[in-house]
Amino acid sequence: MNHKMIGKFIGQILMLEAVFMIPALLIGVYFGELKAVGCFAATIVLTFLAGVALFLFGRGSSSVFRAKEGLVCVGLCWIAMSLLGCLPFYLSGEIPAYIDAFFEIVSGFTTTGASILEDVEALSSSMLYWRSFSHWVGGMGVLVFLLAFMPNQEEGGFTTHLLKAESPGPNVGKLVPKMKDTASILYLLYCILTVLDILFLLAGGLDPLSAVCIAFGTAGTGGFGVLSDSIAGYSPYIQNVCTVFMLLFGVNFSCYYLLTLRKFRDVWKDEELRTYLGIVLGSIALIVWNLRGYYDTLAETVRHAAFQVASIMTTTGFATTDFDQWPNFSKGLLMILMIIGACAGSTGGGFKVGRMLLVIKSAKRSIQQVVSPHKVEVVRSNGYRISEKVVASTNAYLAAYVMIIIASFLLVSLDGFSITTNLSAVLACFNNIGPGFEVVGATGNYSAFSVFSKLVLIWDMLAGRLEIFPILILFSQNTWRRRV
Amino acid sequence: MNHKMIGKFIGQILMLEAVFMIPALLIGVYFGELKAVGCFAATIVLTFLAGVALFLFGRGSSSVFRAKEGLVCVGLCWIAMSLLGCLPFYLSGEIPAYIDAFFEIVSGFTTTGASILEDVEALSSSMLYWRSFSHWVGGMGVLVFLLAFMPNQEEGGFTTHLLKAESPGPNVGKLVPKMKDTASILYLLYCILTVLDILFLLAGGLDPLSAVCIAFGTAGTGGFGVLSDSIAGYSPYIQNVCTVFMLLFGVNFSCYYLLTLRKFRDVWKDEELRTYLGIVLGSIALIVWNLRGYYDTLAETVRHAAFQVASIMTTTGFATTDFDQWPNFSKGLLMILMIIGACAGSTGGGFKVGRMLLVIKSAKRSIQQVVSPHKVEVVRSNGYRISEKVVASTNAYLAAYVMIIIASFLLVSLDGFSITTNLSAVLACFNNIGPGFEVVGATGNYSAFSVFSKLVLIWDMLAGRLEIFPILILFSQNTWRRRV
Repeated sequence: MNHKMIGKFIGQILMLEAVFMIPALLIGVYFGELKAVGCFAATIVLTFLAGVALFLFGRGSSSVFRAKEGLVCVGLCWIAMSLLGCLPFYLSGEIPAYIDAFFEIVSGFTTTGASILEDVEALSSSMLYWRSFSHWVGGMGVLVFLLAFMPNQEEGGFTTHLLKAESPGPNVGKLVPKMKDTASILYLLYCILTVLDILFLLAGGLDPLSAVCIAFGTAGTGGFGVLSDSIAGYSPYIQNVCTVFMLLFGVNFSCYYLLTLRKFRDVWKDEELRTYLGIVLGSIALIVWNLRGYYDTLAETVRHAAFQVASIMTTTGFATTDFDQWPNFSKGLLMILMIIGACAGSTGGGFKVGRMLLVIKSAKRSIQQVVSPHKVEVVRSNGYRISEKVVASTNAYLAAYVMIIIASFLLVSLDGFSITTNLSAVLACFNNIGPGFEVVGATGNYSAFSVFSKLVLIWDMLAGRLEIFPILILFSQNTWRRRV
Repeated sequence: MNHKMIGKFIGQILMLEAVFMIPALLIGVYFGELKAVGCFAATIVLTFLAGVALFLFGRGSSSVFRAKEGLVCVGLCWIAMSLLGCLPFYLSGEIPAYIDAFFEIVSGFTTTGASILEDVEALSSSMLYWRSFSHWVGGMGVLVFLLAFMPNQEEGGFTTHLLKAESPGPNVGKLVPKMKDTASILYLLYCILTVLDILFLLAGGLDPLSAVCIAFGTAGTGGFGVLSDSIAGYSPYIQNVCTVFMLLFGVNFSCYYLLTLRKFRDVWKDEELRTYLGIVLGSIALIVWNLRGYYDTLAETVRHAAFQVASIMTTTGFATTDFDQWPNFSKGLLMILMIIGACAGSTGGGFKVGRMLLVIKSAKRSIQQVVSPHKVEVVRSNGYRISEKVVASTNAYLAAYVMIIIASFLLVSLDGFSITTNLSAVLACFNNIGPGFEVVGATGNYSAFSVFSKLVLIWDMLAGRLEIFPILILFSQNTWRRRV
């Protein structure tokens, strides 16, 4: 294990995090939130010093960096920045318990949006900003940011390993030959879309802080808002803007890159995009049909159905209505969308549409082989042949995914809530959605769970955001044995 | 598609089914149930004639028989024998709706034990016997019976195909070189265990009909009893006998064969058996801990916990207590046991312990490959190397398994019951268990579902019992296209 290199990376991430907190501090100054400003200042100093210390420890590290170390590094980076990132909440007393503050910031960075807050409005503006900003930076990935914008990042094997480990989706395609440039392009597209979202929200009459926070929550497909009733209190225009941008952020970003290259045909023919849009439209239609008579007008029904489908499928988790009161068919459908999730290479979580397509294709092929044992077939995606290694690791991902859900469900059950609450809480955290049903429904929150259950759900959120392996590997004996 | 050969097989199965109904008819005569006797007589004649007609149609069939045809044949046989096997219930009016009678007999043959009956005691004795007997013959498989005991069954490729398609578990090991002999040994062991069970039950003071019916339900891991409160009304001795025999019937039968050969060490070292017993003991301990204070004495708690764990894990579905009232942790644990299921090569259903082990091992290996891309590893079971084909098809099985559960859950949700009811109903039917939670709990039944949902659940029961592929292939376009 290349401890020095890992230490150097974590150090850089922490220094970056300290810088990221400065806007929150300035907002605190602007709104005259003295206590919050003090807490941010203290956290910034502490985080920066910790970062510098780790960076100095990592000086002169060897540049040999293996895939395994990339995974460990990403896992540790996310845990370290969460442990320190939650300090403002805790030090200010706005979230009294450290475990709750930790839960909240992990929920932020992993773009889950599950909250332990009973009263969101009670938070100071600077805390609200930091909470929402954690979604934004977590959505595209903080290591990706580091690779994209920090100077002196050597191009080498480890950048690929890090990017692969932090980016969502079964296979990260390089958009351009250099990984550093790929990361820059991704963040540039991400910024442009976010700014567009902010402008549309401002046009609807939102105040700047709310507009920025909601745009951050949408961009990272996170789901933290600035009000306890999420998006329900805003105008239909604002709600529709959110619906559209949630769906946009659930699309594979390489599609946008292809659009800038005017490769419209490639985008149009993308299997994952077609499936994603098909599922969205189909689900909206089914829910509108199932909800007939529930709202006053068809327009209102369509608005709520479209918003909720977009919110759950992209794993954002905003709500405009208490969908826990919807008929059970609609709830069941939403629960399935929770599992499927958004497109690979987007900021959304879940199993991912692309991965689902791969699993279905590989299952179909295996059934074919039972039927005609002597026929050799390959799995294709968009016409390209998928390597057997990717097929096998996707199937392994499914197995790990199912087992983690089952184990977490059992552990969380110890608190004694209902099966629906427990299962939906695990699905909502592991798939980085946020709200589930019943106790953790659109109008509920996660504060009622025990510390143990919160730790399980924190683990699930991290494992879900980092696609399981970087977190799983931290718990493997082999990882911590010397000389392997 | 070799239509003639398939017709010949279905014909033989129907003739066999007619013979199987004769004991039920005799019991009706003994108890003086005139109407039931008439219905059985009519069904026997009809089924036998249909069988003869199909057999004659299949005369002179070519002996070329492919894997695909084996699957189709098994799927059609099970549907045909269910369509005719439910006639006594329907004709006698004891189950007024044909769909309900069909549901009940499919539940019987697939050893599910899910019932639409509100009042089991209202059934006549001959019907109760036939209902329970369907568990017994479905448990080991009716085609296996045909292969084992009917004269003039040529030894050939198709017997292997049929046996593979009908037997539970990822890979059917031949116990002895000839498939016919393997089938005979399996049925012989099955008969011996069933007779032992009957004797133990009779020793507890049960009347012969109840003892036989309960033993049939235990042997097939079915779960139909003769009373509405399942096993709750019987003495602790009877309940404990059931616990032990349910667990015995959940073990891979090849272990018993090894025991007769005195290969004790092989049995003791069997990974699946160890895991199975470990899960059973662990689950009992956890539930006893979770139920502390719920029953009067520790002995009673252990008895109920052991019974329910054995019943759910082996997918039998008997109940001695309303476990729907247990704390949510215990319910969650039972729900997980529903999914895992019994050992491969037993009469139990579910995903199977052996298959779970394979999936875990293959997932572990894929994670290893992410970590160390250049290391080549093979998956082993009991020290033997597992072929990549089996690994791939096991992963495909998991994918098909998850997707069928998700799709069925969504379709059944249309009836508007709660998420827990719908999910547990699908899990209980697909894994051939029987009772679920809430509406379909230990004290409930499946009568409240719509005809559409019942058809979905019937499909699930058949797909679950026949390990998905034989039923899935019936719905594939390719299967019914000419000349493929």
